[in-house]
Amino acid sequence: MTASLLEHLIDALRVLPGVGQKSAQRMAYHLLERQRDGGRRLADALAEAMERIRHCSRCRDFSETEVCPTCASSARDAQLLCVVETPADRLAIEQATGFRGLYFVLQGRLSPLDGIGPRELGLDLLAQRLEEGGVRELIVATNPTVEGEATAHYLAQLARARGVAPSRLAHGVPLGGELEYVDRGTLSHAFGSRSEIP
Amino acid sequence: MTASLLEHLIDALRVLPGVGQKSAQRMAYHLLERQRDGGRRLADALAEAMERIRHCSRCRDFSETEVCPTCASSARDAQLLCVVETPADRLAIEQATGFRGLYFVLQGRLSPLDGIGPRELGLDLLAQRLEEGGVRELIVATNPTVEGEATAHYLAQLARARGVAPSRLAHGVPLGGELEYVDRGTLSHAFGSRSEIP
Ligand SMILES: [Zn+2]
Ligand SMILES: [Zn+2]
Repeated sequence: MTASLLEHLIDALRVLPGVGQKSAQRMAYHLLERQRDGGRRLADALAEAMERIRHCSRCRDFSETEVCPTCASSARDAQLLCVVETPADRLAIEQATGFRGLYFVLQGRLSPLDGIGPRELGLDLLAQRLEEGGVRELIVATNPTVEGEATAHYLAQLARARGVAPSRLAHGVPLGGELEYVDRGTLSHAFGSRSEIP
Repeated sequence: MTASLLEHLIDALRVLPGVGQKSAQRMAYHLLERQRDGGRRLADALAEAMERIRHCSRCRDFSETEVCPTCASSARDAQLLCVVETPADRLAIEQATGFRGLYFVLQGRLSPLDGIGPRELGLDLLAQRLEEGGVRELIVATNPTVEGEATAHYLAQLARARGVAPSRLAHGVPLGGELEYVDRGTLSHAFGSRSEIP
């Protein structure tokens, strides 16, 4: 017997993070029993997103256009550039703080053992941007993990070498944690109390 | 600003059971960053399943065809008919036990307050089938909850009135639990030790 559409769906759902066989089964049955329209909408949203979402050529964040709305906005302060590891971190900062500058999304962190070096994080692009002038402060908002700190150190050197002042988030972000999961208040406070990297 | 494809995707993912804003966000980023192909496959599987999976006209289980492969199989023992609440319960029994009879899927349980009566559970179809003859034993495998027990009571009467012996799963299934989450060993044991409903 070949796999049925249902088995095929259950299998496909397991591509989602944290979803095992049992949850995938529950999800499939839930959609079939109670949410056919929601399931169809999800299928459409997925297909369109996978096809049309790419990376902004300026900040490397996800974008539907060559340059994302934030980078293209004249209302943002281009003198402030905030570097984050992931789009989720960018979103967390955007939602928690009043930051009105621009972002640069590494899409990772330095991790030599995994073959992730400056090139993979687009740091040539970042260096070029700092050399163009116009950026006054580079806010380094990598995660407070070992690799995140190493990346922050590298970024601070890269900024200083180009006459740009690096800063980092204030203590307050718990060590070993992930920015994405820090509560808004703590994140907002830490962002406001960022200090220059000496 | 209108909702972006990304926001649209995050919103659409929340149709999945147990998925809130934060998990939906994680899922969307995960697919975009690391699983574009998996995301496309999921979109296709969802679209096809929502469109093409319907209910078997014999047992009411999900099926791609008018009559499902189990009901259409000549290798199954048509003298034994096992009634379950949901397709997930049917799958759990099929996987845990050596049962080679047929199934009838209620797609619910009697719940007068929610307007779910015998008609909504297809009990007219079931009664008709028992009247056709050929069924020797009706195995009532509803969940051991209050509503499941009330449904079992109703089914036992329905069977007896048509000269069919009702049986139910042996004690061993934990009270208040859901069949779908019972471990295979317990479920298999309970199925094997089913007793006639006196
Ligand atoms: Zn951008
Ligand atoms: Zn069937």
